[in-house]
Amino acid sequence: MMKSAEQHARVAQVLTPEDLLAHWQGHRKLTRRVIETFPEDAFFNYSLGGMRPFAKLAQELLSIAGPGIKEIATGKTTEYQEGVDPGQNKANILTLWDEATEEINTYYAQISLERFQEHIKLFGQYEGTVSSNIFYFIDNEIHHRGQGYVYLRALGIEPPAFWER
Amino acid sequence: MMKSAEQHARVAQVLTPEDLLAHWQGHRKLTRRVIETFPEDAFFNYSLGGMRPFAKLAQELLSIAGPGIKEIATGKTTEYQEGVDPGQNKANILTLWDEATEEINTYYAQISLERFQEHIKLFGQYEGTVSSNIFYFIDNEIHHRGQGYVYLRALGIEPPAFWER
Repeated sequence: MMKSAEQHARVAQVLTPEDLLAHWQGHRKLTRRVIETFPEDAFFNYSLGGMRPFAKLAQELLSIAGPGIKEIATGKTTEYQEGVDPGQNKANILTLWDEATEEINTYYAQISLERFQEHIKLFGQYEGTVSSNIFYFIDNEIHHRGQGYVYLRALGIEPPAFWER
Repeated sequence: MMKSAEQHARVAQVLTPEDLLAHWQGHRKLTRRVIETFPEDAFFNYSLGGMRPFAKLAQELLSIAGPGIKEIATGKTTEYQEGVDPGQNKANILTLWDEATEEINTYYAQISLERFQEHIKLFGQYEGTVSSNIFYFIDNEIHHRGQGYVYLRALGIEPPAFWER
């Protein structure tokens, strides 16, 4: 049986745009569980080695994901902003997290396959392809979440399993 | 001007096999710099929260990368093995790291584009596509390296910049 063009495109890709979105959102789900796992006080105040508490890292991730994908989809350059402090309240961060999840789904769907290798300058300064920028979002999140795992372990708390997304 | 089939394939991909290899090796270069940055003693003995010292994490990464890509390329299933202890010597680990770099380049080049969405069971147990397994290698490395950054900071040592690959 002949393959349709669509089936062929599906097979002959390292990964499809849908795969990449699922990969990203899977990581974001895990990070959300890490936020949930932190005790309220430790989330905002605990740190090691003079690094930022996990709340600040979560805010950084929120400042990148939604605004980044929106800029990629719309082409409207905005300056990178660390984001408004949502106050000393973990529930607020989780709400912002869920809003970003929807925002990502919405704007990501507007990016055509042809654009992933397009050269862009995100937030007016980060040069690379659309793909390399999205991978940077993901990698940066995994990196900071890895910090969070150490914070949790040092607090005597078992973090969520890394491989569950 | 018409695009050749090859040029078109290049454009209409989230990322090419070559992009993914460069992405992976870029991360491995950074991890290598993190290993180099650790003082010899701390590399083998320092840890936080009851987690493994960075030497053990580096050994895990070595046990996955080379053997994993070899199994993917050759189709010969082997059991996952944590690997032989290279002794209390950072230079040995760096040598093994560089050998793995070559091994990855060699075996990766044998994987055709069509195989990236193939379903496999790596080390006889990790189910997923070739792509998802390779991304797991990379993500797991970023995750553990993130731990290493906290160890270094807690030791008062500046880690290499995350964005330099």
